[in-house]
Amino acid sequence: MKRKLNGKELLYLRIANSLEQQINNNVLKVGDKLPSIRMICRQHGVSMSTAQFAYYELEAKSLIESRPQSGFYVCNASHRRLAMPEISRPETKPVKVVTDIFENSFNNAAEKNFIVFSRGVPATALLPVAKLNKGMLHAVRSLPGGGTSYESLQGNEKLRTQVAKWSFTWNGNLSKKDILTTAGCMNAISYCLMALTKRGDTIAVESPCFYGILQLSQSIGLKVLELPTNPQTGVDMEALKKIVQRTKLAACLFVSNFNNPFGSLMPDEHKKEAVKLLEKYNVPLIEDDIYGDIYFGDKRSSCCKSYDESGMVLLCSSVSKTLAPAYRVGWVAPGKFMEQLSKIKLFNSLSSTAVTHEVIGSFLETGRYEAHLRKLRRTLHTNYLQYVRAIGEHFPNGTRVSRPQGGLSLWVELPKQSDTISLYNAAISKKIIFSPGSMFTLQNQFNNCMRLSYGLEWNEKTESGLKVLGKLASNR
Amino acid sequence: MKRKLNGKELLYLRIANSLEQQINNNVLKVGDKLPSIRMICRQHGVSMSTAQFAYYELEAKSLIESRPQSGFYVCNASHRRLAMPEISRPETKPVKVVTDIFENSFNNAAEKNFIVFSRGVPATALLPVAKLNKGMLHAVRSLPGGGTSYESLQGNEKLRTQVAKWSFTWNGNLSKKDILTTAGCMNAISYCLMALTKRGDTIAVESPCFYGILQLSQSIGLKVLELPTNPQTGVDMEALKKIVQRTKLAACLFVSNFNNPFGSLMPDEHKKEAVKLLEKYNVPLIEDDIYGDIYFGDKRSSCCKSYDESGMVLLCSSVSKTLAPAYRVGWVAPGKFMEQLSKIKLFNSLSSTAVTHEVIGSFLETGRYEAHLRKLRRTLHTNYLQYVRAIGEHFPNGTRVSRPQGGLSLWVELPKQSDTISLYNAAISKKIIFSPGSMFTLQNQFNNCMRLSYGLEWNEKTESGLKVLGKLASNR
Repeated sequence: MKRKLNGKELLYLRIANSLEQQINNNVLKVGDKLPSIRMICRQHGVSMSTAQFAYYELEAKSLIESRPQSGFYVCNASHRRLAMPEISRPETKPVKVVTDIFENSFNNAAEKNFIVFSRGVPATALLPVAKLNKGMLHAVRSLPGGGTSYESLQGNEKLRTQVAKWSFTWNGNLSKKDILTTAGCMNAISYCLMALTKRGDTIAVESPCFYGILQLSQSIGLKVLELPTNPQTGVDMEALKKIVQRTKLAACLFVSNFNNPFGSLMPDEHKKEAVKLLEKYNVPLIEDDIYGDIYFGDKRSSCCKSYDESGMVLLCSSVSKTLAPAYRVGWVAPGKFMEQLSKIKLFNSLSSTAVTHEVIGSFLETGRYEAHLRKLRRTLHTNYLQYVRAIGEHFPNGTRVSRPQGGLSLWVELPKQSDTISLYNAAISKKIIFSPGSMFTLQNQFNNCMRLSYGLEWNEKTESGLKVLGKLASNR
Repeated sequence: MKRKLNGKELLYLRIANSLEQQINNNVLKVGDKLPSIRMICRQHGVSMSTAQFAYYELEAKSLIESRPQSGFYVCNASHRRLAMPEISRPETKPVKVVTDIFENSFNNAAEKNFIVFSRGVPATALLPVAKLNKGMLHAVRSLPGGGTSYESLQGNEKLRTQVAKWSFTWNGNLSKKDILTTAGCMNAISYCLMALTKRGDTIAVESPCFYGILQLSQSIGLKVLELPTNPQTGVDMEALKKIVQRTKLAACLFVSNFNNPFGSLMPDEHKKEAVKLLEKYNVPLIEDDIYGDIYFGDKRSSCCKSYDESGMVLLCSSVSKTLAPAYRVGWVAPGKFMEQLSKIKLFNSLSSTAVTHEVIGSFLETGRYEAHLRKLRRTLHTNYLQYVRAIGEHFPNGTRVSRPQGGLSLWVELPKQSDTISLYNAAISKKIIFSPGSMFTLQNQFNNCMRLSYGLEWNEKTESGLKVLGKLASNR
């Protein structure tokens, strides 16, 4: 986006400046919706691209934010101090290192009285526990043998039927035959990697990347290539193009909707392009869509799987981020790899847990899922805005935060010289736990970063946790 | 056992002959307990070994059977026609082949109206379903969040405490810290193999060996060495000794108690010896003890793990054969490999299913498990005797059957020229399904064999199934 002097570019700056004044004068207030791009075109008699440039400019200044499929809104005031993280620039060569903080982090998270910003699932209070409990009673009564008998290999039919129906929300077109149930999403990803890779192979992922995926990949002897990733639009398509041309990849693994930890969302065109590109180079794409239903705009985003015509996309998901993490209910739609995946499931686990899979199948069937999601999305979006406000107030100058468009996690970049591992240890002693940035890479990067989950209940304790974290960060 | 002429050997034959006459004259009736070895010594004024030889002789003729820790009993009359299978003689070199019948068999087993002799779990009617259902209601009420929250990495504490307590029944000495929960026993074995082996490594197993173990091993690229195995005493110790001296093994995997499909039971001395031997050669032993609680004698057998002082035995088990197959509740006591196993669990599945693990933990805690087991063991032992009787009546001359001392499966050897794959297909068309012998090996052997599970309810339908099978086998 150049500001150099030609008529068109001056025009967009003029529009942007006038809107900026309205925001500063409180004519446009925090949370207000801005006119649509089309409206700007009509009002100012300019082209679409000029109007878009004006909004990009305001967005870059953190004055407004876009919500997918909804439009542009005036940001919370504190956004204004908080720039966005820049596109990540990992070394684009495969790396093999080991880090051990994940396990500690997982176990500490179980400690009582901690403020747990590290847990990537919604707090229990945000889950429909009473309804699920009722579902459990119903399931043990209705399943033959109370759910003691092994399921068929593909898994609970009711659940698969509902997951297939649900695929219409993301422009998918699955049938129950396309789906294999698993014990959660990581279990699905683990089976995909077993099917597609062998020790020594290289896979490509986003950077930063969920540590569970990095650790799993390492534990089975894979090399991991981290791709430059835009905090808003996900994997950098130019980088991806170069990589697939020069490196033999056994698979790509992308969280296309609301990547953990960036919260980035691949635009439809990128999804289409990625599917086409990877198909051309015969690289299977494992798509982790576990956050897809938790969007802050007004519409479900598509998946890469939506554009998959050749069966090269293996879509993995679960209800662990929306309904019941420890039910271990997940699934994979593995495209043309169904036979391999079925065998791997059979050899490694025989059957899913019949009862919990039945409960979730019924929950989806009755339409309770959508009602629950509406509430959950609102809560999480509000939480996110509260986090950004609190971070703006309490964190050191120069802090940057991501602009997640869904999901559960906020990526915070402290000033360059910060060290979030030492901050992690200081926070533990204050009974606060978060995920240091270095967990999200196998390279030497993100040492000044952290992931904060906003899946907690927003209350004074949570706010005080952010305040203490901010103080600790400021004093280091 | 030579019969050649020296005083001692003639003496044992004389005693055996006299007992055989008593049996033939119905002085000793089917099911009667024979005098103890010690009693024979006193009555006949002979040495312990002479008395033992006499009983071995009667056993070899299928006139009597030993029940571990209980003594010797007169067999069901039909046993007399049915010889025991001989010790298996697989090629003792690693093999890599693929067979596909398992998956079909697993899926067909779900078909209704089939007589399913292939399912290696007890029929639902033999499980304490009502009590488990009640346990489920209790668990969702007592677990925080109704069991929606991830467990700690090691798994449900109540369950681990109970499994540790239970270890005293097999002379184990586990504490809850020694145990990691898993989604069933195959899941535990899968994690052990991930921890201990890499593609191209060789592991040694019994022969015949449960097809699930063979298929899993193949799917992760292992070579499998099948060891000569005695239908009564399990793995042939001499063969094992030779193998470990000449072949680098990444692990051994034994079902020491009531091996599936033989039903063999490693004697205590063999267990001790195997542990010592493998320790000497630094070969970890994965011990699958899933059938250990289903014994037909009067006492629980020990495990190899009972004699493990160096932490080289990884004991895997579950309640899938005794309580609830589809609850997916299992565990591993991985000795010195706990750290590796924990990580593998974390990376591949994060958490167990909280609810079902809590239900089983409570079930064990209240002592309901032992009461249930007493009933289950009686039922299965009776089933086994009924099977042997029916096979004696209906199967072709020359059929041999194993003498399981516990567990769920009977190994049947048809006359040499028989082909149980073609019999399998003929049986399917009669809505009967069993497991052909060739599924239990990667080599060209057991083509005339089959495994029949006696975990069904014994009734007219079951008997008619055996009758039809016997007819089909006789006409081929």
